[in-house]
Amino acid sequence: MTIRAGIAGATGYAGVELIRLLGIHPEVQVVLAGTESYQGQELASVYPHLRGRIDLVGQEAAAEALAACDVVFASLPHGVTMALAPAVLGAGRRLIDLGADFRLRDVATYEAWYKKAHTAPDLAAEAVYGLPELYREQVRGARLVANPGCYPTACALASAPLLKAGVVETRGIIFDAKSGVSGAGRGVNLGVHFSEVNENLKAYNIAGDHRHTPEIEQTLSDLAGERVVVSFTPHLVPMTRGILATGYFTLRRDLSTEQAVELFREFYAGEPFVRVRPAGDLPATKQVWGSNYCDIGVKVDRRTGRALVISVIDNLVKGAAGQAIQNMNLMFGLPETTGLLEAAPVYP
Amino acid sequence: MTIRAGIAGATGYAGVELIRLLGIHPEVQVVLAGTESYQGQELASVYPHLRGRIDLVGQEAAAEALAACDVVFASLPHGVTMALAPAVLGAGRRLIDLGADFRLRDVATYEAWYKKAHTAPDLAAEAVYGLPELYREQVRGARLVANPGCYPTACALASAPLLKAGVVETRGIIFDAKSGVSGAGRGVNLGVHFSEVNENLKAYNIAGDHRHTPEIEQTLSDLAGERVVVSFTPHLVPMTRGILATGYFTLRRDLSTEQAVELFREFYAGEPFVRVRPAGDLPATKQVWGSNYCDIGVKVDRRTGRALVISVIDNLVKGAAGQAIQNMNLMFGLPETTGLLEAAPVYP
Amino acid sequence: MTIRAGIAGATGYAGVELIRLLGIHPEVQVVLAGTESYQGQELASVYPHLRGRIDLVGQEAAAEALAACDVVFASLPHGVTMALAPAVLGAGRRLIDLGADFRLRDVATYEAWYKKAHTAPDLAAEAVYGLPELYREQVRGARLVANPGCYPTACALASAPLLKAGVVETRGIIFDAKSGVSGAGRGVNLGVHFSEVNENLKAYNIAGDHRHTPEIEQTLSDLAGERVVVSFTPHLVPMTRGILATGYFTLRRDLSTEQAVELFREFYAGEPFVRVRPAGDLPATKQVWGSNYCDIGVKVDRRTGRALVISVIDNLVKGAAGQAIQNMNLMFGLPETTGLLEAAPVYP
Amino acid sequence: MTIRAGIAGATGYAGVELIRLLGIHPEVQVVLAGTESYQGQELASVYPHLRGRIDLVGQEAAAEALAACDVVFASLPHGVTMALAPAVLGAGRRLIDLGADFRLRDVATYEAWYKKAHTAPDLAAEAVYGLPELYREQVRGARLVANPGCYPTACALASAPLLKAGVVETRGIIFDAKSGVSGAGRGVNLGVHFSEVNENLKAYNIAGDHRHTPEIEQTLSDLAGERVVVSFTPHLVPMTRGILATGYFTLRRDLSTEQAVELFREFYAGEPFVRVRPAGDLPATKQVWGSNYCDIGVKVDRRTGRALVISVIDNLVKGAAGQAIQNMNLMFGLPETTGLLEAAPVYP
Repeated sequence: MTIRAGIAGATGYAGVELIRLLGIHPEVQVVLAGTESYQGQELASVYPHLRGRIDLVGQEAAAEALAACDVVFASLPHGVTMALAPAVLGAGRRLIDLGADFRLRDVATYEAWYKKAHTAPDLAAEAVYGLPELYREQVRGARLVANPGCYPTACALASAPLLKAGVVETRGIIFDAKSGVSGAGRGVNLGVHFSEVNENLKAYNIAGDHRHTPEIEQTLSDLAGERVVVSFTPHLVPMTRGILATGYFTLRRDLSTEQAVELFREFYAGEPFVRVRPAGDLPATKQVWGSNYCDIGVKVDRRTGRALVISVIDNLVKGAAGQAIQNMNLMFGLPETTGLLEAAPVYP
Repeated sequence: MTIRAGIAGATGYAGVELIRLLGIHPEVQVVLAGTESYQGQELASVYPHLRGRIDLVGQEAAAEALAACDVVFASLPHGVTMALAPAVLGAGRRLIDLGADFRLRDVATYEAWYKKAHTAPDLAAEAVYGLPELYREQVRGARLVANPGCYPTACALASAPLLKAGVVETRGIIFDAKSGVSGAGRGVNLGVHFSEVNENLKAYNIAGDHRHTPEIEQTLSDLAGERVVVSFTPHLVPMTRGILATGYFTLRRDLSTEQAVELFREFYAGEPFVRVRPAGDLPATKQVWGSNYCDIGVKVDRRTGRALVISVIDNLVKGAAGQAIQNMNLMFGLPETTGLLEAAPVYP
Repeated sequence: MTIRAGIAGATGYAGVELIRLLGIHPEVQVVLAGTESYQGQELASVYPHLRGRIDLVGQEAAAEALAACDVVFASLPHGVTMALAPAVLGAGRRLIDLGADFRLRDVATYEAWYKKAHTAPDLAAEAVYGLPELYREQVRGARLVANPGCYPTACALASAPLLKAGVVETRGIIFDAKSGVSGAGRGVNLGVHFSEVNENLKAYNIAGDHRHTPEIEQTLSDLAGERVVVSFTPHLVPMTRGILATGYFTLRRDLSTEQAVELFREFYAGEPFVRVRPAGDLPATKQVWGSNYCDIGVKVDRRTGRALVISVIDNLVKGAAGQAIQNMNLMFGLPETTGLLEAAPVYP
Repeated sequence: MTIRAGIAGATGYAGVELIRLLGIHPEVQVVLAGTESYQGQELASVYPHLRGRIDLVGQEAAAEALAACDVVFASLPHGVTMALAPAVLGAGRRLIDLGADFRLRDVATYEAWYKKAHTAPDLAAEAVYGLPELYREQVRGARLVANPGCYPTACALASAPLLKAGVVETRGIIFDAKSGVSGAGRGVNLGVHFSEVNENLKAYNIAGDHRHTPEIEQTLSDLAGERVVVSFTPHLVPMTRGILATGYFTLRRDLSTEQAVELFREFYAGEPFVRVRPAGDLPATKQVWGSNYCDIGVKVDRRTGRALVISVIDNLVKGAAGQAIQNMNLMFGLPETTGLLEAAPVYP
């Protein structure tokens, strides 16, 4: 029994990555490619790398059409998915939202950060935050999953073992994060012009300006069992894919690097997509490039009493399309890794 | 029945790409990772992207150990494989050489270009040149396959339909080719230093100095049925993967772009890994990145009476490891695409 | 006596490069920064790298304001400068056009390639093509200079010694050229999106579709004394600056590489901005990065009877702003290198 | 009267950048190019971008030869300059060390971090730390200047106004720093291989392992008037030049972003090479590329009670050769900017 999948927002970078990954998934067929910009065009003419691999024409992502799919992946500007969701769910289908509409349980927080009224607050309350390593059981039973943002995925996975073990302060946590350019999407503007980005590095939306901040704080608050406020500082790096988050945590008690690594190993034991590095080893973004892995390295700095955690993901895979499929696998009772291990890291 | 594969030269870039691709091949298990530099080390410590995906320790690529594998992939400096080959073949095993030792049927030509005596001339005569699109039947029956070089793959596939149809002159053919840096291998030298290569472009080994020249000429001579001499001009481009070859052919008779494209379409009809672009469309290297495809675009320039052909491949896949597996599939009677379509192009 | 310069199109890449170079020119002051997009804004807020270096506000590039400057540099879309030129020249000022409006002496050719009526055919006839190495004396006396395109500069300098000496055929010349992305300007579109360009390589406007083709042919025809038709094939390379042109010429008579190099050395003896490499040495784009140099390497391929010429420039300097200043120096009787040698190549 | 300069270590990246910058300095002539690897070779053959710009042959950097120069720039592995220094200074010459031998006043700290006995402790005590913005007067009178490291330059300039004003805690300061690859020098190893660095990002020597840590702490302790310990986390970014340091400071009292910016403006008022951005504006590395500027942006995060400071430099200019020349200008009584403003930022 093949799962019939529809993608709303199929021609953005997350959408086209869904097509790559679903194309090698043994249990899924993409039957609908919704697109704003390329309706009526063959996907293979928009994205020639798909030639011979998919035979779909871009069409309007109408609610009725989507509601005929077993599962809908929505990768749309915020505000759009919340309008589509009732129809899809009402038809008894499942919805995985790669956008921000259902990530924040607190609708007021959503509205404050996204400057937009939330039209489906009940669904925001119902939606499961789709970070399987932390919310696996809830995902299994969900009909609506809010797929995490790319930065929040890297930051949450870097934090969970420390916060759960209570070995670090919940105050003063910093994430200095760095992303490749594809995280900004396919829209054209001067900020993604090659000549402006290449051989260049900048910070942006620092000091609490980035909308991923409340999302990170929501997960860390869940983990800590108390309200957590973080410093989140994103940077734009001249590369296409990859996020590296450098987390700074103040230790509550003395801990060796080996002990910290062991904490992570235990926490992520059995996780198919989190790879904890041995003490002394730090991950690089290329080592997970194209794959659904999150690699994590930990080091304690006794001079300053901090634990440093480096986590890396491919922002389009574990940070978007891959994680969405991991969630789909859970929602449909498939083995969680189905179709995802074939997307091996491509190195170099 | 799983094919047990050994890799001699497993820690070079072609070797590690074999590990990626064989790792997602349903019928193969890599059982031996031969390496000069990392004997006794876990592969996952040398290449952390492999962590959790393969559980092998680098070992000496000794002839006896290799001869116990069903198939040996050799990615070694020239001169080394010709020494290993008799033992492997003598044990009844199959050998796919990703190096140059068996690519040139004419041993004198080999010795002239590689400045080295050939110690297995019989095998050089026996070896099949493993470009399946041109030599598929011979590959099926072969026990020794010489996997083509990266540039020669791109150039041969760009030429075959034109030469076979006899619509272009066999004299004056030019390939202006451009390669990413991984083609130079993993060895360290100033020529691959990031600061020397980034934001830089150069030609090298031009005007008949590159060893791929006689290999290209051998295939084109086969196609034309007469001795063909080419101008081959390689360039180094600041990117990791990808080859783009721009072929210049003098037309013997008037031909429209549409007719030329049609010639290519017919020639490659049914080929799973060659994608001919519609008239007016040209391929880019990223569109085959990480995959075994060769994409080809053709345009006729009536002002100058030439046909221009643009072919692109991923030098580590169709230009090395992927093509080697394509050959292995043929040699073992498997469907030719087994395990290769899962390596979809990764875009962007 | 300081030359008062106005720039029409000051906020494009060529314009801002003029500001960099004129800013270190001892005899020039930029007094007017014309811009379409940033009128009323401080240049330093548009381009923060200029902070503290120039104190101008973007303004409309009105003909009257421009006509009050001693010299006007125009870097505008084609069709616009031809409308401004009469006023500037009528006021007794000098005009250096970095665009295409006055590059082609034959107005019909211009109109055929640029799909636009030429409104100042007299000026097109009068304009001097500002490639100082070939037209120095005419530039000295000119009031209107058409600054060459970036590709045509690289191609013409690669060809001149061979054509002048008559040692190569005038038929069958090929330029396989490769450019960094800044050559496409600062306008935003998918073709310059970082994620589309990075780790990617493509050909575009091949087989006689690029507008630089007739410009190259005009200069080569001048050099050869007969009508020359060329194959010109541009490629887009993932780097910001730099053009490398690979020229293929059929030798009329046997010539050694040393003799060919000597031909170039003699032809360019005394030229301050053309550096001919010794035999066996080939230039790379980074070696002229940020500077006004054109570096040239030559090699004869006796197997195919061809001379190969590799020329490299920085497309924004020798290919645009630097050459414009070189022309200005000549037009104002200054030493030709004034203010240009300070822009040393930046390596690495 | 021209200053005759010798460079020990002329063919490393800092050395060759000295040659670029001294080549456009009106008061200096480079008379000696000391090199380990290229003795007897023309510099222009080692670095073709220098062709026609300098006419020197690499020679041994012998103490006697250096002692005949008015000023010696040493860019050598640590341990080497301390052996040369006595002879140079004993001959009454001035020495600017771009290496680490004289940066740490406390010899024990040097020996602990560099694992090497210091053979010239008196000179370590005498040497002036050549960060002109903080130690200008001492530099003027110095005969031995320790040119700061690249990271420490960016970190110290990001910190000085805050620490001097006493508005931030001296504990808990974090520098999350990112560097281009040229900072690692020209030596070849896998860590600088293009295919390993391109499209990749990693942290290295984190948690107090990097030797720039004590150097940063020495300057910050000077500024704070008490012992300061910092977290310093370097990252390697796929670009050639540029450092961006993100500084995290805990505010002692409430401060608006505007007030923080004003603090920086006042502190750096009149500084020719420090450009403080207006509130709301953050610098990018490309905006100082090739120049001696340090650009700084500041933002207060009231949610977390922190001031964030972003500082960017070109690691080879303000982080090495440019700052060395700035120091030389001071030592020789020249205007501090002599020959340095001509090296304008190259953008894009």
